[in-house]
Amino acid sequence: MSLENLELNHTNTIRNGNVAKLLTRTNFARLEKLRNRTRYVASSCKDIRDRYHEHEDGLYYLTTANGMVYQTFCDMTTDGGGWTLVASVHENSFLGRCTVGDRWSSQQGNNPNLPDGDGNWSNRNTFGTPEGATSDDYKNPGYYDISAQDMSVWHVPNNFPLEHWNLAAILRYHTENRFLSLYGGNLIQLFKQFPVRYNVGSCSDRGPAIPIVYDFGDEESTSQFYGPRSRAEFVPGFITFRAINNERGAMALCSGVKPTGCNNEHYCIGGGGYFYVNQCGDFPSFDYDSLGGDQGWTVSKEMSEAAVLLFYR
Amino acid sequence: MSLENLELNHTNTIRNGNVAKLLTRTNFARLEKLRNRTRYVASSCKDIRDRYHEHEDGLYYLTTANGMVYQTFCDMTTDGGGWTLVASVHENSFLGRCTVGDRWSSQQGNNPNLPDGDGNWSNRNTFGTPEGATSDDYKNPGYYDISAQDMSVWHVPNNFPLEHWNLAAILRYHTENRFLSLYGGNLIQLFKQFPVRYNVGSCSDRGPAIPIVYDFGDEESTSQFYGPRSRAEFVPGFITFRAINNERGAMALCSGVKPTGCNNEHYCIGGGGYFYVNQCGDFPSFDYDSLGGDQGWTVSKEMSEAAVLLFYR
Amino acid sequence: MSLENLELNHTNTIRNGNVAKLLTRTNFARLEKLRNRTRYVASSCKDIRDRYHEHEDGLYYLTTANGMVYQTFCDMTTDGGGWTLVASVHENSFLGRCTVGDRWSSQQGNNPNLPDGDGNWSNRNTFGTPEGATSDDYKNPGYYDISAQDMSVWHVPNNFPLEHWNLAAILRYHTENRFLSLYGGNLIQLFKQFPVRYNVGSCSDRGPAIPIVYDFGDEESTSQFYGPRSRAEFVPGFITFRAINNERGAMALCSGVKPTGCNNEHYCIGGGGYFYVNQCGDFPSFDYDSLGGDQGWTVSKEMSEAAVLLFYR
Repeated sequence: MSLENLELNHTNTIRNGNVAKLLTRTNFARLEKLRNRTRYVASSCKDIRDRYHEHEDGLYYLTTANGMVYQTFCDMTTDGGGWTLVASVHENSFLGRCTVGDRWSSQQGNNPNLPDGDGNWSNRNTFGTPEGATSDDYKNPGYYDISAQDMSVWHVPNNFPLEHWNLAAILRYHTENRFLSLYGGNLIQLFKQFPVRYNVGSCSDRGPAIPIVYDFGDEESTSQFYGPRSRAEFVPGFITFRAINNERGAMALCSGVKPTGCNNEHYCIGGGGYFYVNQCGDFPSFDYDSLGGDQGWTVSKEMSEAAVLLFYR
Repeated sequence: MSLENLELNHTNTIRNGNVAKLLTRTNFARLEKLRNRTRYVASSCKDIRDRYHEHEDGLYYLTTANGMVYQTFCDMTTDGGGWTLVASVHENSFLGRCTVGDRWSSQQGNNPNLPDGDGNWSNRNTFGTPEGATSDDYKNPGYYDISAQDMSVWHVPNNFPLEHWNLAAILRYHTENRFLSLYGGNLIQLFKQFPVRYNVGSCSDRGPAIPIVYDFGDEESTSQFYGPRSRAEFVPGFITFRAINNERGAMALCSGVKPTGCNNEHYCIGGGGYFYVNQCGDFPSFDYDSLGGDQGWTVSKEMSEAAVLLFYR
Repeated sequence: MSLENLELNHTNTIRNGNVAKLLTRTNFARLEKLRNRTRYVASSCKDIRDRYHEHEDGLYYLTTANGMVYQTFCDMTTDGGGWTLVASVHENSFLGRCTVGDRWSSQQGNNPNLPDGDGNWSNRNTFGTPEGATSDDYKNPGYYDISAQDMSVWHVPNNFPLEHWNLAAILRYHTENRFLSLYGGNLIQLFKQFPVRYNVGSCSDRGPAIPIVYDFGDEESTSQFYGPRSRAEFVPGFITFRAINNERGAMALCSGVKPTGCNNEHYCIGGGGYFYVNQCGDFPSFDYDSLGGDQGWTVSKEMSEAAVLLFYR
C-alpha cells in the first residue's frame, strides 16, 4: 500500500506544511477581499460592474427585489462584462429518461398528462450552487428576478471547476440586440408567452430565434458539435426559444442554432413532461444514434458532456 | 418572427432604458434597506417585530439557537403581525403517488414497510426557498427551532410570487389559544406525541383539533373548497393535527376543518409512507372523484392548486 | 381532547410566558454572539481555531477559494479541535435500492451502465444542511475546497440534533498520520486516484487503509457494530478508502476497519452505480441477513441507524 513508506511521506508533509503557511497568508488576504463583496447592494452583475467598477470574474452577492440574497458567478470580461449566471442545464444521465436529476424537463417520468413536466422554466424554484453548476442543474433567483436585455451561453465540460470555466468552455456566445426587453426581461416572462409544454402547438409555433455573436467558437464549430443529420435542418448563429418537434414535444432552447426542420429533439434542450418514446430528458434525444457520438442524429461527446450555462445582462 | 422589425424594437428599448434608470435609483435605496435587515438578531418574526418594530411584510433574517442563519417571509400585519413562515406543502402532481417531490409524505413509493415515509414532519431536514414556496415544498429551520404559541395558515395559488401572497390567498386563518405551548412549542415536538405514521393507531386516535379565527374566508368558504361528500364528515372552523383514516393511513393536518368521519384522506394533507391504493401523496386523495373537481370526494380546483403555507407565532 | 380544560392551559401558558421572557434575554446575547462569527474569514475550522482562538463546538462561517460562503459544524474539542464537518452519509431507507435519497451511491437505480452512479464522491455538488446532517445526506463546499491532512469520523444516531452529536455518537475516531496530504488534501482528490466506480478493478485494488485513534469506542466496539460474519474478514482500527467487492462493486470507505476479505458490501459505505442484486445503496448491504440485526452479515441496529459524519483537519 502507498503508506508503507511513512517516513518519507512524513518528510513530504512537513515540506508541504511550509509551503502551506506561505500560501495561507496570501489566501487570507484573498478571502478577505472576496468576503468584502458582501457589502455590495445589487440586483445583477451589471449593477455590480456599473456601481462598484468590479472587473474580475467570480462570485458576487446579489439581492432580489424582495430582499433574498444569493451568490452567483459574474462574467466581468466578455464584451465589457456584467453577465449574471442564472442557470445551468446539466444532463446527469442519458439512461434516466425524465427521472431524478432531470429538473429542466421532468423528474416524474415521461407522461402526456404532465405536459409541463417539472415546470422549472416557468416557476420560482431554485436549485444547485454556482460552484456545482457543471456537476448538476443550477437555477438561482436571478432567473426570475433580474430584468435583462441580452443573454450569453457557455458550454462547459462537466465537472470543471468555476475558476476554469472560461478557458474550458467549448462554445461561448452572446446576443446583442436586447431581445429580452421585448419578452419581459427574463426567461420566466418569455416562457409565459411561449410555454415549454407538450402539445401546446406544432413545429411551426416555435418562439423567437435570436442572432448571436461568438465569444469562443463559430458557426462552423457550432454545427460540428451536433449530429451530421441535424446539420441538415438547422442554421447556426442563433439561439432559439421554445422549439416544438414533429411529435409536439416542447423544448426550451436550441443553443447556437435556428431550426429549419422539426426533429429538434436532437439539438434543443430542456423540455416539457412528454416526448416520443425514450426521448424525455434535459438533453432530450442527443444520443439517438448511440454509436459513439457524432453519427446520425447523435451529438458529439463534447456537447453531450458539457453543461449549458445561461447568463443575463 | 417578432424580431423582424428590429428598428422599432430598438427605439422601444432605449425608451425603456430611461424609465429603467429612474427605477434603478429607487430600487437601489430599496435593496439597501432590505440588505440592512441582515443586522437584526432574532429567532423569529415575532422577535423582529418586538425588538426592531418592523411592521412590513417581507423577507427577514433569522438565526437558530445553534447560529444557523436563514431568510424567510414574515407576515407583519395579520392580527398584529409577527408570524414566521416555516413551511409550505405543495402538491407537484396528482399523478406521482409518493414519488419525487412528495416530501411531506414519501418519495419512496407507497410502502407499508416505510410507515413514516420521508419523515420530514419529524426531522431537521430543510428544503426549498421562501420565494419558491408556492412552486415547491418549503421547510426552513424555524420549523424545528422556533418556540411558538400559535399557527397561521395561508392557502396561496401555485406559482404566485411572494409579494402577492396575501392578496392572492384563497383562505387565511390563525389560532389564538396558544395551543402550541401545550405541545412543545412547534410541530416537530407536536408530532413526537402524534407521529405521522402509517398504522400507528385508528381513526379515533387523531391529535388535537384547534379552533381558528378567519383572516380571509369563513366557515362556509372553507367547506366549499372541499368535496361535497367530505362536507358531511367534517366541521369547519378548526385546524386538526395527525388525522388517521379508515385504512390506518396517517395525515399531518386538516386545514380549516375537524374530522367527524374517517375518510380524511380527502381533506387532510401530508402523510406517512403508506396509503390505500393510489392515495399516497402530499395531498393524499384530493382527486378521488376526478371529474373536474368539486364533485364527490374531490376538492375544488382552487384548493388542489394552492400551496399550504404554515406560520408560527 | 387535550384542549378541553382550556382555562388551566391558559394559566400554564402565562406562567411559561414569564419564563420565556427571562430566557429571551439570555438567548439574545447568545444569538448575537453566534451572529458575530460572520466576521471570521477562514477556509476551515482549523483556520478559525488558529486565527480566532475559538474553542467552542458549533456552527461557523467558512469561505471557499472562490468566495462562496457557507456555515458548517466545527468540532473544536477533539484532539485540540479544528475539525470541519464536510459531509454526512445517511441511509434513508434499506428498501430503496439506489433510489431517491441515495446521493452517496446512485439515485438512478442499480445500473451497470452508470458505473459512477451519482458521482458525488468526485464532484462539486452540495446538498443538505449541518443541522440536518443526521436526518439526510449532507455535503458542503469544504468537501472539495479545503486542503486537509487528517480525517475524523463520527457515527451519530439518526435525527439527533447538532448540540448532542458529540455525546450521542456511538463511535468517534480520527487519523493522525496526515495521510490526506499524500492524496491531494481532500476526498475529491483522493477519489480521483481511486474512483468509486463499478468494475474499475478487483477486490485487490482497494485504496489506502489508514490507522485510526479512537475518541469514543475502541477496536472491540467497532467490531461489534458490524455483523458476526463480517468480523471474520476485517481488522478494526483503520479507515479504508475505495473498497471493491467480489462482484466488482466499488465502495467509498470502510469506517473503522480494514478489509481482509471481499464481501465488503456488508461493512463499507457509499458506492458507484451498480451492485449485485438488491445491494445498491448508501449503506450497500448492511441488512443482508435481515433477521433483526447483528446476525450473519447484518450490522447492528445502532450502526445501520446512525449517520456517518466526515470531518477534515
